Amino acid sequence: MEKDFEKNGINENYGCLFGVGVGPGDPELLTLAAVHAIENADIIAFPGKTKEDSTAYSIPAKVIPGYTEKPAVPIELPMTKNQDELRTIHEKAAAQLEKYLRDEKDVAFLTLGDPSFYSTYAYIDEKVRADGFETEIIPGITSFSAIAAKLQVPIVLGSETVKIQTGLDRNLDTDTENLIILKAGRNAGKIRDQLKTAGFKAAMVCNAGMKDEKIYATIDDIPEMEGYFSLMLAKKQRVEG
Amino acid sequence: MEKDFEKNGINENYGCLFGVGVGPGDPELLTLAAVHAIENADIIAFPGKTKEDSTAYSIPAKVIPGYTEKPAVPIELPMTKNQDELRTIHEKAAAQLEKYLRDEKDVAFLTLGDPSFYSTYAYIDEKVRADGFETEIIPGITSFSAIAAKLQVPIVLGSETVKIQTGLDRNLDTDTENLIILKAGRNAGKIRDQLKTAGFKAAMVCNAGMKDEKIYATIDDIPEMEGYFSLMLAKKQRVEG
Repeated sequence: MEKDFEKNGINENYGCLFGVGVGPGDPELLTLAAVHAIENADIIAFPGKTKEDSTAYSIPAKVIPGYTEKPAVPIELPMTKNQDELRTIHEKAAAQLEKYLRDEKDVAFLTLGDPSFYSTYAYIDEKVRADGFETEIIPGITSFSAIAAKLQVPIVLGSETVKIQTGLDRNLDTDTENLIILKAGRNAGKIRDQLKTAGFKAAMVCNAGMKDEKIYATIDDIPEMEGYFSLMLAKKQRVEG
Repeated sequence: MEKDFEKNGINENYGCLFGVGVGPGDPELLTLAAVHAIENADIIAFPGKTKEDSTAYSIPAKVIPGYTEKPAVPIELPMTKNQDELRTIHEKAAAQLEKYLRDEKDVAFLTLGDPSFYSTYAYIDEKVRADGFETEIIPGITSFSAIAAKLQVPIVLGSETVKIQTGLDRNLDTDTENLIILKAGRNAGKIRDQLKTAGFKAAMVCNAGMKDEKIYATIDDIPEMEGYFSLMLAKKQRVEG
């Protein structure tokens, strides 16, 4: 792949690692930059154990001819809260990718949504750069932008604020007009009740853009519990005057 | 344009209004969905007075053959804080667009970034839908995702939160690990000082993706004042242990 090496002097004979945001599921939400990075890459890397179980890997297949014939490498990224284990996982992933970079291969690492929001890729990118390789991040459409577009509910307007958090560990900060809560499924009922008390309306979407997508359109529809990929959009009720 | 009318029974003989997020400036950050909506539209609508002064209008030109030959309609959206004036502006914009929809034309209204974040399009979409027309929103890459990718700084990780606000009217809420401040230029110095006091590091980018882009890479580089399209990314300093 042609690269502009003038921008970056380090290890210019090595390949470049592209962290490619592939959006939340619909291949139409790939950017042109993502399509071009995937087309030009020598190697596709994706989080997961096999092509078949990787959502990120599946997304470009419909829109990039010849995609499934490209060499593709699964990168296992098991979830854990143990910081030492996490570091070992990220170092192992970086080492796997650097083998190809040293071999002068450009690698496109596919990541769901946008690599800048709650993505494991950020740690891998940091490690690979620290090891002296060139990396580039290609932004993607986030799940919350896609869901807001689908529901035709703007996320934030005028002089409002929006706070984005996960629903796993934190208390809600309701000092904002708008809230986006990712991974809201496990504590859905608890979050729903907190939001109601604080005067918010809300909707929840599970497995957005997938075949088994579910939409809970009002706060009262939200159940006690849902799957991991559940996202809530909440808005403080306006007092009509 | 072929449309799936089974989804939506209202006024199916009329055209559809597509609110198309065109990203922050680089045409490579258009999504495939945006490209297809623009290609298939009968009319391009864009915010501004003329094609020449509209950034949103300029973005697709390099990547969509024949784009500049399509009929294109400027929609004037002057800024004001007067709510009555704003309503009149949005109603006038909606009426302009509805003329084409009644004429069975599909219209692609181009909007910088993502229509769900701080976009005037949200008001127009709501009005046009309330008037009984079909609309569809196509999400776009936000300026903050593009800037974070370029700076290779993740916006939010792990169990952190991120708060997004404008820098015009509000005090900073520093009860978050990460802050994104749009339109930070006018109060840049004041925001910088508040962030420093609260223990944040920060960077500011002005006119991201444009020819006159400027990057202030550290908090101490940020000047007292900058242009309207200035965005700050701020992160709470971690106490290293």
